[in-house]
Amino acid sequence: MIRATVWAEPLGQMSAHPALRALQEAERARIFTHYPEGIHRVICDGLVHELGAEGSVSTTTLDDCEQGLAPEVLAATDVLVWWSHGRNDELSDEAAERVVRCVRERGMGLIVLHSGIESKPFRQLMGTSCQTERWRHGDDYEAVWTVAPSHAISEGIAPVFVIPHEEMWCEFIDIPVPDDLVFISSFAGGEICRSGCCFRRGKGRIFYFRPGHEAHATFHQAEVRRILANAVRWAYTPAPSPAHFADRWEGKQGSLGWFQREAID
Amino acid sequence: MIRATVWAEPLGQMSAHPALRALQEAERARIFTHYPEGIHRVICDGLVHELGAEGSVSTTTLDDCEQGLAPEVLAATDVLVWWSHGRNDELSDEAAERVVRCVRERGMGLIVLHSGIESKPFRQLMGTSCQTERWRHGDDYEAVWTVAPSHAISEGIAPVFVIPHEEMWCEFIDIPVPDDLVFISSFAGGEICRSGCCFRRGKGRIFYFRPGHEAHATFHQAEVRRILANAVRWAYTPAPSPAHFADRWEGKQGSLGWFQREAID
Amino acid sequence: MIRATVWAEPLGQMSAHPALRALQEAERARIFTHYPEGIHRVICDGLVHELGAEGSVSTTTLDDCEQGLAPEVLAATDVLVWWSHGRNDELSDEAAERVVRCVRERGMGLIVLHSGIESKPFRQLMGTSCQTERWRHGDDYEAVWTVAPSHAISEGIAPVFVIPHEEMWCEFIDIPVPDDLVFISSFAGGEICRSGCCFRRGKGRIFYFRPGHEAHATFHQAEVRRILANAVRWAYTPAPSPAHFADRWEGKQGSLGWFQREAID
Amino acid sequence: MIRATVWAEPLGQMSAHPALRALQEAERARIFTHYPEGIHRVICDGLVHELGAEGSVSTTTLDDCEQGLAPEVLAATDVLVWWSHGRNDELSDEAAERVVRCVRERGMGLIVLHSGIESKPFRQLMGTSCQTERWRHGDDYEAVWTVAPSHAISEGIAPVFVIPHEEMWCEFIDIPVPDDLVFISSFAGGEICRSGCCFRRGKGRIFYFRPGHEAHATFHQAEVRRILANAVRWAYTPAPSPAHFADRWEGKQGSLGWFQREAID
Repeated sequence: MIRATVWAEPLGQMSAHPALRALQEAERARIFTHYPEGIHRVICDGLVHELGAEGSVSTTTLDDCEQGLAPEVLAATDVLVWWSHGRNDELSDEAAERVVRCVRERGMGLIVLHSGIESKPFRQLMGTSCQTERWRHGDDYEAVWTVAPSHAISEGIAPVFVIPHEEMWCEFIDIPVPDDLVFISSFAGGEICRSGCCFRRGKGRIFYFRPGHEAHATFHQAEVRRILANAVRWAYTPAPSPAHFADRWEGKQGSLGWFQREAID
Repeated sequence: MIRATVWAEPLGQMSAHPALRALQEAERARIFTHYPEGIHRVICDGLVHELGAEGSVSTTTLDDCEQGLAPEVLAATDVLVWWSHGRNDELSDEAAERVVRCVRERGMGLIVLHSGIESKPFRQLMGTSCQTERWRHGDDYEAVWTVAPSHAISEGIAPVFVIPHEEMWCEFIDIPVPDDLVFISSFAGGEICRSGCCFRRGKGRIFYFRPGHEAHATFHQAEVRRILANAVRWAYTPAPSPAHFADRWEGKQGSLGWFQREAID
Repeated sequence: MIRATVWAEPLGQMSAHPALRALQEAERARIFTHYPEGIHRVICDGLVHELGAEGSVSTTTLDDCEQGLAPEVLAATDVLVWWSHGRNDELSDEAAERVVRCVRERGMGLIVLHSGIESKPFRQLMGTSCQTERWRHGDDYEAVWTVAPSHAISEGIAPVFVIPHEEMWCEFIDIPVPDDLVFISSFAGGEICRSGCCFRRGKGRIFYFRPGHEAHATFHQAEVRRILANAVRWAYTPAPSPAHFADRWEGKQGSLGWFQREAID
Repeated sequence: MIRATVWAEPLGQMSAHPALRALQEAERARIFTHYPEGIHRVICDGLVHELGAEGSVSTTTLDDCEQGLAPEVLAATDVLVWWSHGRNDELSDEAAERVVRCVRERGMGLIVLHSGIESKPFRQLMGTSCQTERWRHGDDYEAVWTVAPSHAISEGIAPVFVIPHEEMWCEFIDIPVPDDLVFISSFAGGEICRSGCCFRRGKGRIFYFRPGHEAHATFHQAEVRRILANAVRWAYTPAPSPAHFADRWEGKQGSLGWFQREAID
């Protein structure tokens, strides 16, 4: 049983950023048509439907106690699904650090969606700015192409599927080279973007999925739901290798072949 | 339910290669102590024990009908586990081709053990000679180190474990850069070898695991059994992406945005 | 001084394949407008211009003695640039094998262009079918996006540039996961294709570049010339690591720490 | 002409960390035998010797003005070679940030040596703890094995060479999966460590090389000197792709096919 927690910014709150705020207000009607109870509820419904008895899915938000990321919430989470957009700056450094440590030290899976690329935990885990050079908030289609048909996250997904309306981003996206590149998207203007990317950090597995602007119905789409469920399964580590990342000054030292004796003892 | 098939050279037959034959005869007592009914039986027992109700495991050998790789055998196999050593040259080109195509076109998983590195299917899938520069058939230990603690194949495996007796091989091993490097081994003389390597080819996943010389008890060891079961689970693709690798002259052509119309239609 | 050899099918000869032949005949006027003396001459001119005193560039073709790939030609080649399309099947197995061995065993660089993806040497080095699922011989643009701005092959190349007319191919292209993915292309219909891919095999470096259909002026374009010159520099190994891929039965054996004594002796 | 700058902790100053300080005092005689004028001087001498007219090499230290990393120093640096050990905590956040931004945004190369793995810039660029599980400050040999004989950094390096005396570290080392793995080391006790690792971040190339404890003569050794010179050449980007990582809110928007018009205009 995989315990998945969907964390999101609740959509009722607007960003403090003037440009983003203006955008969100203009789109308020569309946002609330697609996600009347918040985007996390629709993502959660999709996972419940796809995972069935394999998973137990709950939700939490930026406006909950301890920004929805209290230690006990994370302790009960095998895979954290993260959606954020306009309020990335509001996340406390402490909450970001807790997420990062759960991934690296305990092997918690992390699925980051859309503008969560610029969230504090993802940027810290990547080591890059995670910015995109160009974007267009218009009425593009996004065609999602599978370039890794043998990957667990593309199981059951067609060689290409189309999200009818999405925000466009294009390369270069300033992320590290993905450990696995699963999907590449194209947009109506001919732009492209690596849109399904796997990374490993410490004991944890991370999947970044680009689509998911809140003004569009993306998380209602069957292929997207299947991909998120595949990603949750892939990111789940029931028994991570017991490697511990000790403070080196406490490390064992001074003997040859210690590991052989330990293995025998 | 994963259908795993363990394919091996039966150990009663000796290699036609004089050097190998001499070696095998000298070791005959040890081989039959560890693997009285053949190495495939012990590998199969380990998988049955580890996979339980998750798997259905059968065996087949080079000396069986159609070299144990008849089309109907492969058609009923989700993951093929491959052990070969002295008789790699005896495999027919047709049987090798069938294995290669099942991996690439149908997504059959392939787990290749020890000297199976030099088998025809593995060499064809890699595109390299798959030879190792130096080897030593002595009485080394092999220490297997996990360098990917977040990988599905290292789940439950310690940061290092020791196989008390193994054949030594050292780098450079002429394989492509692995898509995932999971284990690196060291030997009593200070040699090292990349020993757990994942590759993707077409729709299929391939795992190469280095240990497994027939004169040693390797496949009786708990960690090795766990790794092989992890690898079988990892290599299993229940619903590969339906990408088809068409002959290009039969491909669809001549229209813009065909994929959008297909997606809508 | 890098010794580059440009090998190509001469364009005067037509393919024996009826579909290809019909296509080539229909395009004969365009082909001879762009490449009146053969495509290899234009590729060669571009390299001469870009490399200047760094390189010495020569040409050879499928219709030359020993199919242009005589041992002495290869022995005098540091980097082989390969263009082929309609006559891939005509290459002898012996010539293909010579190319493969020069790459793997001697570190000859190999730059494969366009339909050279289906040539014998490239397919053998990759271990996959190297086929593409869909293609369109129309009048697409090809937009080439840089996804590795830190790579030697993208030096001086804009984040995106456009080839006004090219043949379209789209994913899934059946190649292994590239060791470095440098470029991704989009086409007028919204299709995408990984179009600049690095691979390592043995001691050699391989770069695959997708554009280059003979009916288009691709090899006259400044960005393409720069990319090919960057690729030749990247693929050149003046002093490859002296690893030798010995036949294992001739390998040194039987002693612990042989490499330490050799290093000291 | 590559402008390389060697930055190091000067060895006269001792760490504030009690354990490290005790160690350094015990080793003071050995340190000053090998590096009487500081470790940066020996690294610099090696680069000068190897690069000849290809490079211009200078040095700077933690005790220099602005910790040796003033903006004008970095602006005049194509490749920064970094050695630090006991005083990683003393680096200011501002200096670390300057180094990180030069790598990502301007394509400055970065070569990180030994305990520089735990320096602030490297940890920020990696996104992991960069800690090692076990270490031994004894009298191990370190055997350095080449696993990428086709890589620019292993050019001219034997399949294995031995550093007679080094500090031991072993896996798991908490770094991301390297983009290229060039060397793996083994130690006298049978431990192993990935010891030559390439990473890409933004426009910059990073190479991590593990050997280099200050009590040992490592940086006097010919193979190490060659590797560092190879790495400086590899990390140098004379004309990085002009991708700029704009603040997304200033990005161009609102038009289809902008890149095609720009390419044509």
